[in-house]
Amino acid sequence: MTKQEQCEAQEKTIELLSKAGIILTEEEKKNIEVADFGLNELTKTGLQLITYINTDRYCAKDLVLFPKQTCPEHKHPTIGGKEGKQETFRCRWGKVWLYVEGPSTEKILGYTPKGSEGAYTVFHEIELNPGEQYTIEPNTLHWFQADVDGAVVSEFSSTSHDEFDIFTDPRISRIPEVAE
Amino acid sequence: MTKQEQCEAQEKTIELLSKAGIILTEEEKKNIEVADFGLNELTKTGLQLITYINTDRYCAKDLVLFPKQTCPEHKHPTIGGKEGKQETFRCRWGKVWLYVEGPSTEKILGYTPKGSEGAYTVFHEIELNPGEQYTIEPNTLHWFQADVDGAVVSEFSSTSHDEFDIFTDPRISRIPEVAE
Repeated sequence: MTKQEQCEAQEKTIELLSKAGIILTEEEKKNIEVADFGLNELTKTGLQLITYINTDRYCAKDLVLFPKQTCPEHKHPTIGGKEGKQETFRCRWGKVWLYVEGPSTEKILGYTPKGSEGAYTVFHEIELNPGEQYTIEPNTLHWFQADVDGAVVSEFSSTSHDEFDIFTDPRISRIPEVAE
Repeated sequence: MTKQEQCEAQEKTIELLSKAGIILTEEEKKNIEVADFGLNELTKTGLQLITYINTDRYCAKDLVLFPKQTCPEHKHPTIGGKEGKQETFRCRWGKVWLYVEGPSTEKILGYTPKGSEGAYTVFHEIELNPGEQYTIEPNTLHWFQADVDGAVVSEFSSTSHDEFDIFTDPRISRIPEVAE
């Protein structure tokens, strides 16, 4: 991802947030995190994040997905004997499909990103519309995808340690570098 | 507070939330908590709350204040050796003044509710406009008040145990009964 792609993604993120009525300070706008997970295909596989607070006790973020964008399959493991991250996703705007461990849904409404099909292994579908939410227990594989308009999702959780997330796709690096 | 006053307050809460772009399910609308703290003067001293999630690790709520409504001074103490609640207030809509321990602000913009002046002892003022936030450490006295339009505030925190909150006003009961 180039610096320019990152800036454009930040602009798009601000637009989607404003549709959800969510206001950021100028400082927060500059710090919107654009994650392409090192795959360099942001509009297909990626996620935009604003972290409001992350203390040693709790964390809160807003997540933004572009139309049909997918956050790839991962889990939050136990770290140093401390239980992994527990997180609640609450849809604020748009529609999102969340896939977690459990009986596979017969015909899912999302799709696995082309070329990465093998990196998706859980297909228990939960549809989240505005006002709907779901809590994901620690160490549980999950991935999620927005519908055609994109989505804004609030994430309430225990402390976040993104650097320890385990992705099913071995090509993924959670915190890749941005090219100048 | 009568059942009817409670219903009217829930309706007003839904209106203010919709101004902030916040959508609730029908079930959540029915469960909006209207706290008058047992003082029976809700429009002056009170708070409306929607608890989205409260696990043994984290909690997330949206708080709604009516115009000039005050949430009375209190703190979250250590319970059974476990540190009290740490909480982050993020203003989503309207304007709110938060008062915490620290050097008193010379001329505060809020006011202490008439007849309860003695129950307010901390006057370090923090003004929160949409997109602004502040984190309150455990066991720290605080109170807050909305400006003339009311306010919507997201609260991200460690686990919530409202029943253990300590209020400065000895008349206050956090979880009073609703009259039929």
